[in-house]
Amino acid sequence: MNNRNETAVLLISCHDQKGLVATVSDFIYRHDGNIIHADQHTDQEQSIFLQRAEWQLDGFGVPRDGIAEAFRPIAERFAMDWDLRFTDHVPRVAIFVSRLEHCLYDLLGRYRAGDLRAEIPLVISNHEDLRPLAENFDIAYYHYPLTSETKAEQEPRILAKLAEERIDLVVLARYMQIVGPEFVGCYPNRIINIHHSFLPAFAGARPYHLAYERGVKIIGATAHYVTEELDQGPIIEQDVARVSHRDSVDDLVRKGKDLEKIVLARAVGLHLRHRVLVYKNKTVVFE
Amino acid sequence: MNNRNETAVLLISCHDQKGLVATVSDFIYRHDGNIIHADQHTDQEQSIFLQRAEWQLDGFGVPRDGIAEAFRPIAERFAMDWDLRFTDHVPRVAIFVSRLEHCLYDLLGRYRAGDLRAEIPLVISNHEDLRPLAENFDIAYYHYPLTSETKAEQEPRILAKLAEERIDLVVLARYMQIVGPEFVGCYPNRIINIHHSFLPAFAGARPYHLAYERGVKIIGATAHYVTEELDQGPIIEQDVARVSHRDSVDDLVRKGKDLEKIVLARAVGLHLRHRVLVYKNKTVVFE
Amino acid sequence: MNNRNETAVLLISCHDQKGLVATVSDFIYRHDGNIIHADQHTDQEQSIFLQRAEWQLDGFGVPRDGIAEAFRPIAERFAMDWDLRFTDHVPRVAIFVSRLEHCLYDLLGRYRAGDLRAEIPLVISNHEDLRPLAENFDIAYYHYPLTSETKAEQEPRILAKLAEERIDLVVLARYMQIVGPEFVGCYPNRIINIHHSFLPAFAGARPYHLAYERGVKIIGATAHYVTEELDQGPIIEQDVARVSHRDSVDDLVRKGKDLEKIVLARAVGLHLRHRVLVYKNKTVVFE
Amino acid sequence: MNNRNETAVLLISCHDQKGLVATVSDFIYRHDGNIIHADQHTDQEQSIFLQRAEWQLDGFGVPRDGIAEAFRPIAERFAMDWDLRFTDHVPRVAIFVSRLEHCLYDLLGRYRAGDLRAEIPLVISNHEDLRPLAENFDIAYYHYPLTSETKAEQEPRILAKLAEERIDLVVLARYMQIVGPEFVGCYPNRIINIHHSFLPAFAGARPYHLAYERGVKIIGATAHYVTEELDQGPIIEQDVARVSHRDSVDDLVRKGKDLEKIVLARAVGLHLRHRVLVYKNKTVVFE
Repeated sequence: MNNRNETAVLLISCHDQKGLVATVSDFIYRHDGNIIHADQHTDQEQSIFLQRAEWQLDGFGVPRDGIAEAFRPIAERFAMDWDLRFTDHVPRVAIFVSRLEHCLYDLLGRYRAGDLRAEIPLVISNHEDLRPLAENFDIAYYHYPLTSETKAEQEPRILAKLAEERIDLVVLARYMQIVGPEFVGCYPNRIINIHHSFLPAFAGARPYHLAYERGVKIIGATAHYVTEELDQGPIIEQDVARVSHRDSVDDLVRKGKDLEKIVLARAVGLHLRHRVLVYKNKTVVFE
Repeated sequence: MNNRNETAVLLISCHDQKGLVATVSDFIYRHDGNIIHADQHTDQEQSIFLQRAEWQLDGFGVPRDGIAEAFRPIAERFAMDWDLRFTDHVPRVAIFVSRLEHCLYDLLGRYRAGDLRAEIPLVISNHEDLRPLAENFDIAYYHYPLTSETKAEQEPRILAKLAEERIDLVVLARYMQIVGPEFVGCYPNRIINIHHSFLPAFAGARPYHLAYERGVKIIGATAHYVTEELDQGPIIEQDVARVSHRDSVDDLVRKGKDLEKIVLARAVGLHLRHRVLVYKNKTVVFE
Repeated sequence: MNNRNETAVLLISCHDQKGLVATVSDFIYRHDGNIIHADQHTDQEQSIFLQRAEWQLDGFGVPRDGIAEAFRPIAERFAMDWDLRFTDHVPRVAIFVSRLEHCLYDLLGRYRAGDLRAEIPLVISNHEDLRPLAENFDIAYYHYPLTSETKAEQEPRILAKLAEERIDLVVLARYMQIVGPEFVGCYPNRIINIHHSFLPAFAGARPYHLAYERGVKIIGATAHYVTEELDQGPIIEQDVARVSHRDSVDDLVRKGKDLEKIVLARAVGLHLRHRVLVYKNKTVVFE
Repeated sequence: MNNRNETAVLLISCHDQKGLVATVSDFIYRHDGNIIHADQHTDQEQSIFLQRAEWQLDGFGVPRDGIAEAFRPIAERFAMDWDLRFTDHVPRVAIFVSRLEHCLYDLLGRYRAGDLRAEIPLVISNHEDLRPLAENFDIAYYHYPLTSETKAEQEPRILAKLAEERIDLVVLARYMQIVGPEFVGCYPNRIINIHHSFLPAFAGARPYHLAYERGVKIIGATAHYVTEELDQGPIIEQDVARVSHRDSVDDLVRKGKDLEKIVLARAVGLHLRHRVLVYKNKTVVFE
């Protein structure tokens, strides 16, 4: 296998202790690893240490499949939560949509241009509307109609399809359904949603209408991991745009679309490049 | 009186009807007025017409004191809410503070530099701390200690002082007390507060702590007119700043201070230049 | 013809004089026009008056084809430069591209979603690369290879094609060729270019490389009308994004792409909604 | 000496080599240092490694005065450029001004509030205007009139005064004079200037006038270290604000003042917290 440009990424969190940076960097150095990115953060209030380290597989003294084994004693010594990822594994992504196309269209454009390091084998929707768009990109489109009655039986089918397709990441690209707790439990910190407001303002439905009624001067969009509580998961990325009294609800929706697609794409890109670490319902984004 | 550079400003709101722009501009034109700013906005959803017109007093065919009388028939014909202001009247402003000085310090700096068209005859506080700062600028400082017991008797004293000083505008520059309904009633749309969050997110107390706990990626500040409902009044101006996981609560407070002082100063400046019109708990800002 | 929601738009510039607002609004009012947007601006330094007025055709007392004739005496009296447009005329747009697809892809997505009020009958390029993308949208794609030798003979062919297709607006969506003075002369203030820097910084070639070398902390993108002088035309819209020392040139290019597509789309949208007025190599954007 | 909260800061740059992170962190760990911040960056293009490490002096196994000696062998082995700083040394800052007061006023406000970790023993100016402001803060004010004839003889006097006051950092807070090469040579990367434009746009004089004439939609401010070439030094911080055709030159100046004071204060704060590392005429800002 030619892994010349491939790297290993360690994401670590644990109780803050002396020697963490020294021990992890020594582990990589001792095996001739060439570090191309290392960043750490200590949450002083909680005494939590968080680190990301990335080094080249090429020339590393431990074979790819032995790295986890070699690192385990260190992890155990410091009681680390840790995650080892390899960039030669390309994550498989499922995109969920309803009727609005701008986020799906934007993600597929990046995919097409090679800007997303991922495979996108399928799009899932509760409507038929966006099938032509997905098929235009030769991506399978699965329609699971959802009503309050059918939801309980449809979700297991969706989960089975995701399992069959070995999906690593679920992206809710303006999917207007709430995913159930069982679903969330299957993909912890692996479901990214775009919410069309500056959370925690205007959580829930119809945020642009609420923003209009409140007369805010700035609107926003928020990408977050989905947890059991609606719109309460760890925030990955947010951005805002200035508006004025001249903007009708339709104008807010139009301006918001550009925010939504950019913020969602940034969050997905950060996740796919293994830049996001979750702790205490927050994210550390190692940019 | 030399009013060469002085102007009259009309702020109008009424039900949308044909002929409004034509009639108002004709009124000014007919009397040889030189319009230096005119802007209007129609809220299509509510069918409300809102207008700001500003013209030079110099050369205008109606004397200053007769303008209201001359305009009244038009106002009545269209059932307008209207407000006529003159820039040769310099508004008198009272600044309320508690212990934090950055907003007061910033406003007084602008005042000193001649950037605020206002008189600031007094600063009012529930603490003694900022007396030296006010006195440094030769501004009277009044200390009204407030506890839950004394509040009911102190507020009338404060109102009496404001009346005695003929105050036009009250600025709550990080004043950590809630002003009562009677107070608000005395100064409708004439009390500006700075709230240290991006409203409606984190209304109420300790917004930076809440923002830190929620893990937002952007913080904000909001200047609004005070109404009876806490932090629910019409928003005049907002701004935001990017933060990251590296920012502690103290960092948010530090970064937030710069937002607060800039946003408050912008809102006060817009109000003093008669650029803000309130309707339906929102503002139209004619910039 | 059902023109229930269609409007007329007047864009006016002239020497500042008394009575301009009154006369124009009276013209609309006298003929029972319902104004839905009116905005004006006076450049005090140059004594130039600039106005945009938009009213509903439905119910207007002058038939569509007679409006210009009816307005002409007013225009002549005040020596106005003026432009009368109707929203029932859908502008025809040609998009020029080279090899980079993100701007074209984004514009076509908005077109597909009905967010651009325009017809896009053709895409023109000096390369074959983006033909599949255009054809995916059933848009004709014309390839005009350009070398320094062939340019002189190719440009007239391109102009002939544009004339044949009755093109109203040319959008240079990362078209990496300089259009000649004759071309510019055919489409005054009707060629919009996106430049991948915050002009006037980094005009000309390779702006991201220059930004990287200079170590700027913020990058930008600029949409402007094309004039004979390279990157010197009237600016319609700009936006920026924060960068850091961690960003390589490739990162700047990646982040810049999102800026470019959003800024270009905003500028094209403003032009198509008749919101932009050019004077003295600047724009007034009536938002 | 009680140095409980005091820290040591290492700023390192050198050719990128394996083992750098491991060796530096091992040095701190071996002596029982508690790292509270560590960040590194590799400029891949230039193969330059840059690092900042900060650890508590309290409990560190090497006494404060021996740390440099203890670290020297590591520095020599990797041929590092390095800088060791201690937070118990409070830098001494001289502020230079001309006639505009907003930046000085803002810096002194932060100083007064304890937000700047510095001593400010003197203000230097080529005018008398701001003497009352400095004296209000009990800060010595030195007036050095400068004309093209006197400049050559005045600058050595200024330098002598700075030496006498053991100044560590010079802040040019809208000082409208160019400091000479000898001056710059005395304070390499220790003179911070605020330029009132988004560099490299509008370098040199009258940037707001030029921005107005060019019709830009966004203005900016840039804080940078001063080098021999005017406005060409390493950029520390920049920020921008949106403007429109409605803004006159005076409006740009007014809006720009807020940018200038915030951007300058941020840059000075970053420098004083030892967060800025200069290489190749750029900065790495370890935030």
